Amino acid sequence: MAHVQKVVRWALSAVRLAGAFIRLQTVTPTVRTFSGSHSLSQNVPGTLWNLGRLNHVAIAVPDLNMAKSFYKNMLGAQVSEVVPVPEHGVSVVFVELGNTKLELLHPLGNQSPIEGFLQKNKAGGMHHICIEVDDIEAAVTDLKQKKIRILSDKAKIGAHGKPVIFLHPKDCGGVLVELEQA
Amino acid sequence: MAHVQKVVRWALSAVRLAGAFIRLQTVTPTVRTFSGSHSLSQNVPGTLWNLGRLNHVAIAVPDLNMAKSFYKNMLGAQVSEVVPVPEHGVSVVFVELGNTKLELLHPLGNQSPIEGFLQKNKAGGMHHICIEVDDIEAAVTDLKQKKIRILSDKAKIGAHGKPVIFLHPKDCGGVLVELEQA
Repeated sequence: MAHVQKVVRWALSAVRLAGAFIRLQTVTPTVRTFSGSHSLSQNVPGTLWNLGRLNHVAIAVPDLNMAKSFYKNMLGAQVSEVVPVPEHGVSVVFVELGNTKLELLHPLGNQSPIEGFLQKNKAGGMHHICIEVDDIEAAVTDLKQKKIRILSDKAKIGAHGKPVIFLHPKDCGGVLVELEQA
Repeated sequence: MAHVQKVVRWALSAVRLAGAFIRLQTVTPTVRTFSGSHSLSQNVPGTLWNLGRLNHVAIAVPDLNMAKSFYKNMLGAQVSEVVPVPEHGVSVVFVELGNTKLELLHPLGNQSPIEGFLQKNKAGGMHHICIEVDDIEAAVTDLKQKKIRILSDKAKIGAHGKPVIFLHPKDCGGVLVELEQA
């Protein structure tokens, strides 16, 4: 019986462990409910779209190797090599955080879109957040109707090879928001 | 013996369940590999710690209801009510993005830590990022050894009721980085 009791205690510990992971997993709600204009927009053909997960936080940095070293050697994060993306005028280091990633950006070439930002923020800083959407075309149509300014006429192919739009920071509480087709 | 075998089978199922949740938790690069100083720090008692998921992106906003309305009605996000957190001098709206969240912050009281930021950034902007760690005390010890400046002598209880530290933006590529005990 002592053996059975030992096995039962071990089993209970394992179940508690499983429970702990369930709780860890469900700290933030994952079932998304949409409210406000969205419950209305379901009745408007062509404007139904859903916001998804945070794809990344983009951080402009004046020294890419120093920033990479900080996340790798000081914080112990998993980081990529430097990836040149000349068609978007940036070199990128990806910092994996498990649930999402940081993208460390440094200007590449003469017409980098982050050159001006770094001139104003010489130490670097957070440049934009990128949130996924399930239908970028529907989002464009809907946001135009809602008078949110989009920084291009239509979605363009972004640095990940997927269609993206950028929303005007003045319409988004001071934050440059990128929406990317999931 | 049949009973013992049954208990053992049940225990093994429970362990597999725990394993499944561990795997679920770590869908994206889960097995974290630490390099550089971290592989060394495993030999230093009291300094072993791991970086975890992005807990939130904090955004300071000049008008909390307008910012809440933008994420709820323009982007269709799931947002909380306004939550006053007087002990930290902010009112907060949580924007759930499934994998992580945005926290919209507005000053509360006379000595809000985000008052100065909003005076410099009148339209609002990204204030800090918060990354979870598995052992905040080990992180404090380790980062002090690595000469990363921490904005307090030791970890303090943060807005989520868990110990946190803030790292000096000048040591973090221009970004205010909060580390929170997971």
